[in-house]
Amino acid sequence: MTYQPQFGDIAHLGHIELLTPKFEESLAFFTNTMGLHVSGQTDNSVFLRAWADYERYTLQLTRSNTSGLGHVAFRARSAKILDELVQHLESHGAKGEWRQESFGHGSAYRVPSPDGHIVEIYYETEKFQPVGDQVPGYKNMPQRYRPLGIAPKRLDHVNLLAQDIKACRLFFRDLLGLRVTEQIVFEDEEMGAWLAATNKSYDIAFTRDKSKAHGRFHHLTYMMDSREDVLRAADILVESGIAIETGPHKHAVGQTFFLYFYEPGGNRIEVGAGGYLIFDPDWKPVVWSREERSKGQAWGLQTVSTFHTYGTPPEEED
Amino acid sequence: MTYQPQFGDIAHLGHIELLTPKFEESLAFFTNTMGLHVSGQTDNSVFLRAWADYERYTLQLTRSNTSGLGHVAFRARSAKILDELVQHLESHGAKGEWRQESFGHGSAYRVPSPDGHIVEIYYETEKFQPVGDQVPGYKNMPQRYRPLGIAPKRLDHVNLLAQDIKACRLFFRDLLGLRVTEQIVFEDEEMGAWLAATNKSYDIAFTRDKSKAHGRFHHLTYMMDSREDVLRAADILVESGIAIETGPHKHAVGQTFFLYFYEPGGNRIEVGAGGYLIFDPDWKPVVWSREERSKGQAWGLQTVSTFHTYGTPPEEED
Amino acid sequence: MTYQPQFGDIAHLGHIELLTPKFEESLAFFTNTMGLHVSGQTDNSVFLRAWADYERYTLQLTRSNTSGLGHVAFRARSAKILDELVQHLESHGAKGEWRQESFGHGSAYRVPSPDGHIVEIYYETEKFQPVGDQVPGYKNMPQRYRPLGIAPKRLDHVNLLAQDIKACRLFFRDLLGLRVTEQIVFEDEEMGAWLAATNKSYDIAFTRDKSKAHGRFHHLTYMMDSREDVLRAADILVESGIAIETGPHKHAVGQTFFLYFYEPGGNRIEVGAGGYLIFDPDWKPVVWSREERSKGQAWGLQTVSTFHTYGTPPEEED
Amino acid sequence: MTYQPQFGDIAHLGHIELLTPKFEESLAFFTNTMGLHVSGQTDNSVFLRAWADYERYTLQLTRSNTSGLGHVAFRARSAKILDELVQHLESHGAKGEWRQESFGHGSAYRVPSPDGHIVEIYYETEKFQPVGDQVPGYKNMPQRYRPLGIAPKRLDHVNLLAQDIKACRLFFRDLLGLRVTEQIVFEDEEMGAWLAATNKSYDIAFTRDKSKAHGRFHHLTYMMDSREDVLRAADILVESGIAIETGPHKHAVGQTFFLYFYEPGGNRIEVGAGGYLIFDPDWKPVVWSREERSKGQAWGLQTVSTFHTYGTPPEEED
Repeated sequence: MTYQPQFGDIAHLGHIELLTPKFEESLAFFTNTMGLHVSGQTDNSVFLRAWADYERYTLQLTRSNTSGLGHVAFRARSAKILDELVQHLESHGAKGEWRQESFGHGSAYRVPSPDGHIVEIYYETEKFQPVGDQVPGYKNMPQRYRPLGIAPKRLDHVNLLAQDIKACRLFFRDLLGLRVTEQIVFEDEEMGAWLAATNKSYDIAFTRDKSKAHGRFHHLTYMMDSREDVLRAADILVESGIAIETGPHKHAVGQTFFLYFYEPGGNRIEVGAGGYLIFDPDWKPVVWSREERSKGQAWGLQTVSTFHTYGTPPEEED
Repeated sequence: MTYQPQFGDIAHLGHIELLTPKFEESLAFFTNTMGLHVSGQTDNSVFLRAWADYERYTLQLTRSNTSGLGHVAFRARSAKILDELVQHLESHGAKGEWRQESFGHGSAYRVPSPDGHIVEIYYETEKFQPVGDQVPGYKNMPQRYRPLGIAPKRLDHVNLLAQDIKACRLFFRDLLGLRVTEQIVFEDEEMGAWLAATNKSYDIAFTRDKSKAHGRFHHLTYMMDSREDVLRAADILVESGIAIETGPHKHAVGQTFFLYFYEPGGNRIEVGAGGYLIFDPDWKPVVWSREERSKGQAWGLQTVSTFHTYGTPPEEED
Repeated sequence: MTYQPQFGDIAHLGHIELLTPKFEESLAFFTNTMGLHVSGQTDNSVFLRAWADYERYTLQLTRSNTSGLGHVAFRARSAKILDELVQHLESHGAKGEWRQESFGHGSAYRVPSPDGHIVEIYYETEKFQPVGDQVPGYKNMPQRYRPLGIAPKRLDHVNLLAQDIKACRLFFRDLLGLRVTEQIVFEDEEMGAWLAATNKSYDIAFTRDKSKAHGRFHHLTYMMDSREDVLRAADILVESGIAIETGPHKHAVGQTFFLYFYEPGGNRIEVGAGGYLIFDPDWKPVVWSREERSKGQAWGLQTVSTFHTYGTPPEEED
Repeated sequence: MTYQPQFGDIAHLGHIELLTPKFEESLAFFTNTMGLHVSGQTDNSVFLRAWADYERYTLQLTRSNTSGLGHVAFRARSAKILDELVQHLESHGAKGEWRQESFGHGSAYRVPSPDGHIVEIYYETEKFQPVGDQVPGYKNMPQRYRPLGIAPKRLDHVNLLAQDIKACRLFFRDLLGLRVTEQIVFEDEEMGAWLAATNKSYDIAFTRDKSKAHGRFHHLTYMMDSREDVLRAADILVESGIAIETGPHKHAVGQTFFLYFYEPGGNRIEVGAGGYLIFDPDWKPVVWSREERSKGQAWGLQTVSTFHTYGTPPEEED
């Protein structure tokens, strides 16, 4: 029988490569204010992770002349599934290429999303090995919690801008087996799609790019254990002089508690908490209309205009 | 190729039937103090759910002359997988029987656990349909949150006592495809096993029965959104005259924040929050030794002795 | 030596009489959604309190043909201090009149604020006596916590609109002994003043009325134990169809976490949490400039325009 | 008319001098793990404060050959009140002595408590002046919040052991004007007394010393903004290898959420949150009986035996 990708074949979002034109400032922000941990570096990149991320890294920060997405990587369920996914992609016209072992993980297949974002799939990975004062007090955690800065718990999701939301949604649903959890559809036009590889309400989202650009990045999100932690993060940002774009507030979509801001390189970052888990294997996507979205966020906050228009790299027209 | 159960084939814990010798008192407790919602009843049972549970019910409360477990039910990923699981069970000596449609769900296969607990697997289910003031303000939630009593969000897990932990662990791992997430092993004797059907750190647990009884129930758990909600629940219980057994405190195992108490029928109930999600498809069980467990719970609270000895139905020797 | 009012002579904010043109709807809101407790009634008023308020009531809801403030009452430190305060008021041109015993408290002196709000001072009071299932589990609390609706803990403060902020500030500071804790001063014009009778950062505030009206009401605030409770309140309001005006968010002024909405009679209500305590007996008021206020609330939320313009009773021009 | 101390004449608890036989370890703990700020030092002492403490310091850590209390200091309402308090003390047989200006504050009167603890009263004080990256984002706060370690908000209270609780209670009530808020009385024997100089439920407490020693220290407490912060502190302590004595849990007395542990010098430290404010000027002390106390803490946790027996300096008999 022909292989058909099913929910769970992509195990989870693995890491995100973020480009920054202000490498040193970005790095200082992610280590000091965000409280991420450096776990390696190469000539042009530093590799970072949150304290409860189990792999070697979840964020690759790369020196560049612009901001935006380098690539986004997902870990497959097994080596066999990785191969089957790649064959399935190729047989459905999604042609990419294999790359040899990279920092922290084994060979990976890179394929463009319908909007041109570089999507990577891999299976072999290097798990984080704590040493010294990183050794956790709780043996079910990969590392000791270090109370410095915002100190999020783990990478949660990525949000990408795209011209054709439907194409991106079907790419991740039909070629990679993700579950479509929520959508925004204005009349007949898809404006947003949220998809999950796990029981979370989403691991990747696509929202409509108002500019004509392709392959742009909207935000990535690290998760806190509680909404109180997000409120604390807001104070830390204010005290650090980092511009908060919007929040803390609650999303109607996904039910997550959010806080958006910009790292020094210009990329939008979120720290969040909460949301809901989906257990129903037959989940039907929740579809929000233009009228429903016009009510603003969960508690009525109107979405700030930059949230609809700003992505990285920025458009000159923006 | 022969079907092999894999992680995800059991989609999630579905519901638990709890026996109570004090039916009216138990029902009053679950509706008024716990704040669960009644969604149906038959001659000897009332069916209840938390506000964010998507199925018709997650708790079946049944009039009985004793306390303890009626049965515990899991929903399969699909009708096809349900059939394959049943064939797999039968071909491996786990013989049960099909039951026709029951309240709220389709035909189900009932098979005893190695310790004699009745385990049910089903796929077809009736989703909860909100009416009137149950219609939620958030369309991605199955029902409006009703601020009455503890008001937990959803069913989380069940913990069963057993004589042979290893047998139960292998039954759920090898015959049903669950992931073993954590274990307690004293020298060479298994004392506890935690297993997950989802990305949660567990959906079912087995702990060693210190009595000679079989098929006993340790506790079931409803989940809150935050630890603050659990602290609030503790005050509600104290004010309601319900005996708290232990907590609120944090489990080292599973990292969940817990609060244990007894419903009027004598069954142990937990409300919890937190924990961690497992994304690694190759997760290796975390194994705790006698020495490690001797340190008590996460922050040093010694486990109360009843937690190790009391189950339902109670043993006369207890 | 002549009596001079000092900090502490007014012990605390006692109660607020709120007028409503939709008496039944307002009452249903305050009892069901807010979860306040009815502790008495007269022909045109119902008396309510939060579960941890120690007096017979903190909110008097009065049937009227308009919305707005009936009166605001403060309890004096002692009977002797009450008399001295009244003499001090009268000798400084603030002429009011004594009223006989009212519902729940002894004789009171009523005097208009410089903007015409009716301010009442009393000392003798009736403490709340719990009966039946109101008897608390904790004997240092006046009543059992009842988990129904928002269920705030206690009355916190009142905010009144006025034409002449300085006059109101000096009235409460020099004639009643309150501490000026924070101020908003645009160039040389006072726009807001916060004053405290206790160690809290404020018990009463005055903000500039943009209309030409006098004696208007901006909002009253009940306090929750945690910010999580305020977030929970926001969901309760959304699910109840009550319009949230703004929040939850954090005030820079006072550092309190806020959530504003309208009760059915049109009066603005806040539930809050947090803030800071002032221990320094020589506290100097913190003064915010126009430029500082232009940055919005603590985390950058711009203040909604209604917050600056809407008061009760509403102006026809509004 | 003769001066009589009244509630409010002692403005607040000012600072505590703690002795430690492991000076360097204690200092490292208070700065790194607790996240207090060093604001000065002398030959044998380092002066520390929490980020929201308004004075130059709230904790004086002093090199010693033992653990325990150096002295505990309270700030008077004014210079005039300080003089009147001293005359009142002296005329009632509480003879102490004036000390010239000390680090961070003006002249102070030192007098022994009935159990021999050194109690200091002062008025003139040096307020903390933030510089550089200490300058706060919120101008109503004395310093920027620094997210490092537990990072409590402010000093809250001190608890001292004593042989004669009644004598200590009356000393603080009648000679210094504090309010008795709660008491533990076993039959006719006073076991504990809680007193407040502010609207908080206590600023100082005395509990019965089970040893024959005098002048011993039980604990001091720094306050967090939320119970979530206390739960986070528990994880930080576990990860740092600091022994938690008991908690987090809620006190019935005072309603505060508590977490007790030992700093390296052996002194017991608490971080807490919550509690209640007292606004009633006629507050009657809440008196707990032996039977009531036998129920344990608020949610039923039995008080650990060390809490009843261990103080600093430790008794050889302990």
